Amino acid sequence: MTTLLALYRRPDGGPEALATFERRYRDEHLPLVAQTPGLRATRVRRVADSLGADTDLVLVTTMEFDDRAALDAGLRSDAMRAAGRSLREIAPGLATVLVLEDAPDLWGA
Amino acid sequence: MTTLLALYRRPDGGPEALATFERRYRDEHLPLVAQTPGLRATRVRRVADSLGADTDLVLVTTMEFDDRAALDAGLRSDAMRAAGRSLREIAPGLATVLVLEDAPDLWGA
Repeated sequence: MTTLLALYRRPDGGPEALATFERRYRDEHLPLVAQTPGLRATRVRRVADSLGADTDLVLVTTMEFDDRAALDAGLRSDAMRAAGRSLREIAPGLATVLVLEDAPDLWGA
Repeated sequence: MTTLLALYRRPDGGPEALATFERRYRDEHLPLVAQTPGLRATRVRRVADSLGADTDLVLVTTMEFDDRAALDAGLRSDAMRAAGRSLREIAPGLATVLVLEDAPDLWGA
């Protein structure tokens, strides 16, 4: 599996700005993500707490694909391009998006 | 489900330091994590790439518990306390550890 991991920082503007971001993320961004070809599973989680130092992260989303080729095809799709545009509008500069690969040499499958 | 998410930054010292961190993470830290009561699933993934800006993150681990009470009990266990001590030794200042809760109001379960 190849995972696309999106980490979202807290928007400026207090609880109202966070509520607006979440509403637009749910109503505008995620419906586009859901149309991505090859997307096997999506999980959206809120940051409830941090151990040790404070964090500025508020939301974490994982999107699973069969492999890197499937992810790359998904990223090139119209749905994911539109999702990227919506993200730049509703969360400018707030997202870190990483490609993750399972590490079976570190943790036995 | 309640998820413990650990994000690891790249250690100073080049590829050799990263290899040493990964070896000790696998041989010293993860065996302690595996003994945590209530731990339902663990997934260890490397950061293969980032979209947009560069990232200093190299490793991402998720640990799943039934709920926050189960996580808190796990965190108080001898196994997790020892795992925390090992982490401070092998990756000082390199880890961000977050508690995540599923957000079914954002993404229909």
